[in-house]
Amino acid sequence: MLEVGRHGLAHILAKAVTELFDGVRLAIGPAIDNGFYYDFDLPESVTEADFSKIEDKMREILKRREHFMRKELSKAEALDLFKDDIYKTELIQDLPEGEIISVYYTGDDFVDLCRGPHVENAQELMGWAFKIHSVTGAYWRGDSSRKMLQRVYAYAFADKKELKAYIAAFEEALKRDHNKLGRSLELFTTADVVGQGLPVLLPKGAMIVRTLQRFVEDEEERRGYQQTMTPLMGKRDLYKISGHWNTYRDGMFAIGDPAKFDDENEDVLALRPMTCPFQFQAYLNKTRSYRDLPLRYNETATLFRNEASGEMHGLIRLRQFTISEGHIACRPDQLGAEFAGALELATYMLQTVGLYEDVRFRFSKWDPNNRAKYIGDTTQWEAVQDAMRNILDELHVDYVEAADEAAFYGPKLDIQIKNVFGKEDTLITIQIDFQLAERFGMEYVDSDGEKKYPYVIHRTSIGCYERTLALLIEKYAGKFPFWLSSLQVGVVPVREEHGEYANEVAQKLRQAGVRVEADHSNGTMGNKIKSFRQGLAPYILIVGDAERDSGTISLRVRTGTQVNEIALQSFLDGCEDMIQNHKLELIENF
Amino acid sequence: MLEVGRHGLAHILAKAVTELFDGVRLAIGPAIDNGFYYDFDLPESVTEADFSKIEDKMREILKRREHFMRKELSKAEALDLFKDDIYKTELIQDLPEGEIISVYYTGDDFVDLCRGPHVENAQELMGWAFKIHSVTGAYWRGDSSRKMLQRVYAYAFADKKELKAYIAAFEEALKRDHNKLGRSLELFTTADVVGQGLPVLLPKGAMIVRTLQRFVEDEEERRGYQQTMTPLMGKRDLYKISGHWNTYRDGMFAIGDPAKFDDENEDVLALRPMTCPFQFQAYLNKTRSYRDLPLRYNETATLFRNEASGEMHGLIRLRQFTISEGHIACRPDQLGAEFAGALELATYMLQTVGLYEDVRFRFSKWDPNNRAKYIGDTTQWEAVQDAMRNILDELHVDYVEAADEAAFYGPKLDIQIKNVFGKEDTLITIQIDFQLAERFGMEYVDSDGEKKYPYVIHRTSIGCYERTLALLIEKYAGKFPFWLSSLQVGVVPVREEHGEYANEVAQKLRQAGVRVEADHSNGTMGNKIKSFRQGLAPYILIVGDAERDSGTISLRVRTGTQVNEIALQSFLDGCEDMIQNHKLELIENF
Repeated sequence: MLEVGRHGLAHILAKAVTELFDGVRLAIGPAIDNGFYYDFDLPESVTEADFSKIEDKMREILKRREHFMRKELSKAEALDLFKDDIYKTELIQDLPEGEIISVYYTGDDFVDLCRGPHVENAQELMGWAFKIHSVTGAYWRGDSSRKMLQRVYAYAFADKKELKAYIAAFEEALKRDHNKLGRSLELFTTADVVGQGLPVLLPKGAMIVRTLQRFVEDEEERRGYQQTMTPLMGKRDLYKISGHWNTYRDGMFAIGDPAKFDDENEDVLALRPMTCPFQFQAYLNKTRSYRDLPLRYNETATLFRNEASGEMHGLIRLRQFTISEGHIACRPDQLGAEFAGALELATYMLQTVGLYEDVRFRFSKWDPNNRAKYIGDTTQWEAVQDAMRNILDELHVDYVEAADEAAFYGPKLDIQIKNVFGKEDTLITIQIDFQLAERFGMEYVDSDGEKKYPYVIHRTSIGCYERTLALLIEKYAGKFPFWLSSLQVGVVPVREEHGEYANEVAQKLRQAGVRVEADHSNGTMGNKIKSFRQGLAPYILIVGDAERDSGTISLRVRTGTQVNEIALQSFLDGCEDMIQNHKLELIENF
Repeated sequence: MLEVGRHGLAHILAKAVTELFDGVRLAIGPAIDNGFYYDFDLPESVTEADFSKIEDKMREILKRREHFMRKELSKAEALDLFKDDIYKTELIQDLPEGEIISVYYTGDDFVDLCRGPHVENAQELMGWAFKIHSVTGAYWRGDSSRKMLQRVYAYAFADKKELKAYIAAFEEALKRDHNKLGRSLELFTTADVVGQGLPVLLPKGAMIVRTLQRFVEDEEERRGYQQTMTPLMGKRDLYKISGHWNTYRDGMFAIGDPAKFDDENEDVLALRPMTCPFQFQAYLNKTRSYRDLPLRYNETATLFRNEASGEMHGLIRLRQFTISEGHIACRPDQLGAEFAGALELATYMLQTVGLYEDVRFRFSKWDPNNRAKYIGDTTQWEAVQDAMRNILDELHVDYVEAADEAAFYGPKLDIQIKNVFGKEDTLITIQIDFQLAERFGMEYVDSDGEKKYPYVIHRTSIGCYERTLALLIEKYAGKFPFWLSSLQVGVVPVREEHGEYANEVAQKLRQAGVRVEADHSNGTMGNKIKSFRQGLAPYILIVGDAERDSGTISLRVRTGTQVNEIALQSFLDGCEDMIQNHKLELIENF
């Protein structure tokens, strides 16, 4: 089993580091997805230059063909065995009294606290392929108030072929990493002086996001959503009603003296982590009747989350992001259809940008054992979760269930996606809320004349735009579908005298709504083509004598295809087709 | 002269209040645009019920035909005369030593500190028309740490006809007041629980703003602007470089403990009051050459200003607003043309929304006597102001000059506009900045190989969208031009059986990009028409047997015109014309 081998190699790594460095204290060393790591407390810094020395020592140790010897001890015996070792001592102290504690020896000179299991003898690992690839800082027990240790990471696979395949895939992933490729394509940048988790979308990135936003706004309008524009901040009182102030305050940016946040006399404002309490004000603007429902509101909404420094990453985890957030207020008899509509819209969006095949569905429930995170009582929660499960089953959604992942006010369907390195995040979420309408006094007069509270579906349709952009960069390695490309067509005149025709072509394309640029600089034709190619423009048009005289264009498609002297109108028609129908593939035959 | 008469009536008001109420202390009472006011410190609250009583007393006093007797005193004599009057005493103490101080008696029993001039005898004011219309709180000397006084306002004109005309105009203005009309038309709302200065744009208002935003973004793109999307908050360090932290901190929302804002070790973030330091990061993303300039950046940017409670108003003065902010980095030889381009764009925008005829231009300069507000030295300021004056004169801009109204980094052209009550605000500003590029290290390599700093033009093209919406509501009294209307066409089937044809008509209009709604509710045809009319829909289409059978529509134009059985296609063409050409008037002949 992969995990057993990797875990064994982690012991071997620890032994090697102990032999090579002075004053080593061992913390923990588990197997992970692609190998293993070990956390060391040692006076010297391990650097890349040490990696091959450590690997050699590991191989040398494996050749000693030592047994992995399990020994079982009482807690007192274990504490005595590790009495000079502060980390192991702490781990042992945390174990329940009376538990049998196991340790593994590798030779007489190395022992580690370990549940096992392990291979019998180290020689079984001699055929394994491993490679130390990085060292990072890691707090003891993940607690930033404890000591920072050195975590040495290694890839490990059962043979060289697998390791090689993994590294090749990883290198491909690196090339697609939005945090690198997005910068080199000038889609976004960051600046220390601006702050962490606050990326600057450069014109090319902003154009993609703007295209997406308008597409989403128009599609949602078509589906009966009404767009609002609500404030990005509000008073503490508002978040007290919604429950955010009590359940989510650490994740919010509040303004003012933190010592006075609970002082009733202080005027405390906070940036919004969600749109709900603001968008609800639109519902509350007038009396609503059962005939007005469902009311579907959407907003291209910027939100703020006070993320810890270590958690922010590229365009994926940010302090500020923008999302199409929407809330549907509906009657109980409309809940199923409205939920289905929200899911159908999200599906449509994912298909349109080409991400649908990469997602999985998670039915996120509350955890009755973690009550402090949630509002509402058990009966209500169970009832609404059952209702949601029925809806999901009726829609034949292929979901997994997950406890303790619900919103604090209700269960949700999360649409999960992995980035290019395999890390999973939530892209889209559709939530059923049976509580906030009542808290905000959002009534409607039902057909029987009674005042009632609607269900509220909290939903997005395409996820937050920054994260979606990151996923699209990685999905397409920067080679975006035509309709999403910031520059769609580059025009290169063969010589200066073809500049006028190049402009004429560009002008016609522009009028048809194509984003086009003609390069009139002093460079050579070859350099101009190269420059458009580096920008990953879907099409490069080349216009010279032949094209001008016949009113045609010659074409280099980003896929490599070349097409000569085709009618401009055919190309134009193709562009319009790709834009209007959100084609994911480039047309190559015009 | 109006002012003399109004000022005289202010004295009479003060005398009347003194005679009617006990324990009155007088503060100040100047003439204003439409009358006068007087600030009183008195134990009792003056209410609307007192207005006519006070007016009667004033008329009674006028009939006494008392002289306005001027008397000149030394400072010591004046202090003695007003020794029981804390407010007058404070005013006298602030006057320079040795200055002759004048007071005016109205009868033996009333005297006020006053520069004059006044009419000779109160009987000259007997023909005047005046009307007390409101009482508000006002801090003594406008200082919120001093006592709150009662300010009694009155309109005053030389005769009844003028007063009547003024009140009629004011009542018309009240009807157009965006803060009332905008709410009743469901364009926006506010909520105490959200906070002051933080309006919620409802779907109808948001649709107008979205239409404007897309129009501005597209027009700016056409003119060579590149759109960015930059963070709404940044680190204190960023604002230190820009100078905002030192010159503008009180106007900013900073996050964290205010006591630690100057602590270098604290991580302080602040919401942005302007986009500049963020958008500059796009310029800084790579090395720039003289050939890359001008670089024109724009952004649909949300900004935050920490306004004092008393200053916030409707959609005009807010804590958060959105604006098309842009920055043009250009070489000195491009400054004139780029400034002209920015002005031409603003002019085009104002013409397109119909506000151009209402604006005036203000050349806002620094004030060398108020140095703390500005960065940079005198020579630089004078040079760049001269350059700007030359540009304005060459463009034949009809401007007034205003000292101490510049941005802290450079002079600006402000495009000023008055709201329906005559209160003037800045709608659009175009600024020349000769300082921030250097502070941010925004270099370009010039043709001579030297590194230089560009000029930066800070500009907007249509002002902040909330304020523009307010002005448009008042300009059009809610009857927006077709292209800006949130609902453009309402369709009313004569009877239920015409519903299908109504839908067909609506569908065709929708496909042509028209915002249309067909009313299929149970109401009568009359009620449906009334409801669309109340929403100020530009066109109401009525479809019955005749229309269905001939494929036509009958039309009620918002102007009152009725047109029967016209071809649907003609109407469609007209709608497209009004949208594409941003027509301000409704077409009535199809």
